[in-house]
Amino acid sequence: MIYFDYTATTKPKDDLVKLHQKITNEYWYNTESLYALGVKGNNLLQKSVNVICDTLKVNHKKVLFTSGATEANNTAIYGVCHPYFSNPKQIITTVFEHASVLKVFKDLEKRGFKVTYLRYDDHGNLDLNALAKALTNETILVSIMWINNITGAVFPIKEIINIVKKYPRCKLHVDAVQGFGKIVPDFAFNDLDLITLSGHKLNGLKGTGALIYNERINLCFMQGGHQQNGIRPGTVDLAGAVVMAKAINLASVDIQEKYLNVCQKYEYLVNALKNELYLILNINKHQSPYILSITFKQIKGETVLHFLENSGIIVGTGSACNSKAKEQENTLIYTLKDQNLPINTIRISLSDETTFEELDLLITKIKEIGTK
Amino acid sequence: MIYFDYTATTKPKDDLVKLHQKITNEYWYNTESLYALGVKGNNLLQKSVNVICDTLKVNHKKVLFTSGATEANNTAIYGVCHPYFSNPKQIITTVFEHASVLKVFKDLEKRGFKVTYLRYDDHGNLDLNALAKALTNETILVSIMWINNITGAVFPIKEIINIVKKYPRCKLHVDAVQGFGKIVPDFAFNDLDLITLSGHKLNGLKGTGALIYNERINLCFMQGGHQQNGIRPGTVDLAGAVVMAKAINLASVDIQEKYLNVCQKYEYLVNALKNELYLILNINKHQSPYILSITFKQIKGETVLHFLENSGIIVGTGSACNSKAKEQENTLIYTLKDQNLPINTIRISLSDETTFEELDLLITKIKEIGTK
Repeated sequence: MIYFDYTATTKPKDDLVKLHQKITNEYWYNTESLYALGVKGNNLLQKSVNVICDTLKVNHKKVLFTSGATEANNTAIYGVCHPYFSNPKQIITTVFEHASVLKVFKDLEKRGFKVTYLRYDDHGNLDLNALAKALTNETILVSIMWINNITGAVFPIKEIINIVKKYPRCKLHVDAVQGFGKIVPDFAFNDLDLITLSGHKLNGLKGTGALIYNERINLCFMQGGHQQNGIRPGTVDLAGAVVMAKAINLASVDIQEKYLNVCQKYEYLVNALKNELYLILNINKHQSPYILSITFKQIKGETVLHFLENSGIIVGTGSACNSKAKEQENTLIYTLKDQNLPINTIRISLSDETTFEELDLLITKIKEIGTK
Repeated sequence: MIYFDYTATTKPKDDLVKLHQKITNEYWYNTESLYALGVKGNNLLQKSVNVICDTLKVNHKKVLFTSGATEANNTAIYGVCHPYFSNPKQIITTVFEHASVLKVFKDLEKRGFKVTYLRYDDHGNLDLNALAKALTNETILVSIMWINNITGAVFPIKEIINIVKKYPRCKLHVDAVQGFGKIVPDFAFNDLDLITLSGHKLNGLKGTGALIYNERINLCFMQGGHQQNGIRPGTVDLAGAVVMAKAINLASVDIQEKYLNVCQKYEYLVNALKNELYLILNINKHQSPYILSITFKQIKGETVLHFLENSGIIVGTGSACNSKAKEQENTLIYTLKDQNLPINTIRISLSDETTFEELDLLITKIKEIGTK
């Protein structure tokens, strides 16, 4: 089996699975309990927070361990907007966001928030002029992903930080799920107010995520007990938290080496396919080499997926999160500027473990489709 | 170490930890992916849903796998109320609920919902007359726990079902976390609209929970992708779901035998302590034998906890979820009818694995405190 769907999920590392088992067996006491066995677990939780803050080089930040990036995104956005439910303000995002951001904005829009959705400008860049124009002293939140999960478009977080920081009331949230551990940032994580990360995209475990946020922000989303300062109530999944911290830490090693490695493979793949007339390569002006979105002019993505699967090649269509949804991905509609082509799209995602032999087979099989 | 804090959390069963590891390693693909490896995982997810429905003997129900009972309670209550955010209705609960229910009601109250909080009547029963009086055709939700997590009070779910069912618009949610697997219900789970369960209270894993709900209800809480029908978005934690289903299934075996076993131990403990004048045993008219709440007239619960801990005995104070919160437990305030005594309270929780030798040591140590 040749796996090209790292964007959907990754294989958990053996060491992380074993670590999860160890913590589950040895630290099963409730971390909120007042006796020493509970306190010991709570200390380990705090240590995991520190590992994440050290890895991201952030200070004056708190860490919430969540059940994944979806909950982290929901907590960030609803959390910042909660105090304004009775007095809705302006909030800004892009049409390219993951459903766990976009649908929260749609819900808030229904509840009276004024939402600005950024798109590409005429040059194919995220429209930062529109961002600058939209921002006012009444804007409370800008939420923009670092790297798009469908096409691999890289958004200019550094420039966005510089624009948003002129409005001290406005918080900046970045869904960093597809960027962290893949690209060395040209910005400081510490300059973001809220950062979303996912465990299972980093060879960690499903059901684990983190929201790293400025300690001055009072978040409010899930309601319940006093765990995680009451901001993220529910008995702490300590094993999940420890593994999440470790996954983040491991992913931060050799990012540039892996990036250059993947760039070679990405270029090899693009060069092999760029002249195939039955294809559109959805390459953005600023592109992550970890993702190549390919639209077939005349064949459905799902058909291509199953054809490749017959040769043991695993690719994705759009985002796995919405693979069974009836709507097409917004990102593809706005990238392809077409309502019909998104359904004809597959997503190849690469890793530093991808081999040229694997790429050669993929290229051969895609070309076979072209000659049918 | 002698553990008397099963209400806070339980030790994960070896077989369940191993099952978690197996699924994590073998079924790590995204369950929403369209290729066979994803479909296989999705089938396993559906099988886990079926295991839960079969175990609870429910039909026309759906199952959401959540990160725990807190998320399940939040999803149930916010989920039912979401369509009425712009037109708030009446909702009913009790003052005895877990924080993950009570705080949601408090939040909804702030947003304009009319909330009725039930208490005990003069006979020490949950005030069902007040429930009957409060209910109207405009009431959309009643949320009442089966067994209270602080004192072990058993609430009359059968009678509540009969009262609520006269109002077809009104949904009945039961937080069954401390009841399921401990007491054979005198009601049918199928007569409830929404049921919350927690994995780590059933010797399962932390970070796992389930909300079982009537398929006709349109829930809306977390926003995101299409997973779990879009009702509970976020990449599915398949290993967590499979283990949750198995934990529920295992907990459903021999409930009556375990109950009778624990009753003996509970009575032994109560008989040994009932004449100690420095204690108040917070025994309710309808009482679970799995929990004994004890108030010391003159000593803080935390002091007692640490004294017992020195002898290797682990007990809880109030709910672990709120052990570090500054407020005292509502349940104790309303049970003891006193603002000052709740802080002097410990919670002993029993299991069928508790031995009489363990109880004897506990009794001896408690009596030592009495003679100080």
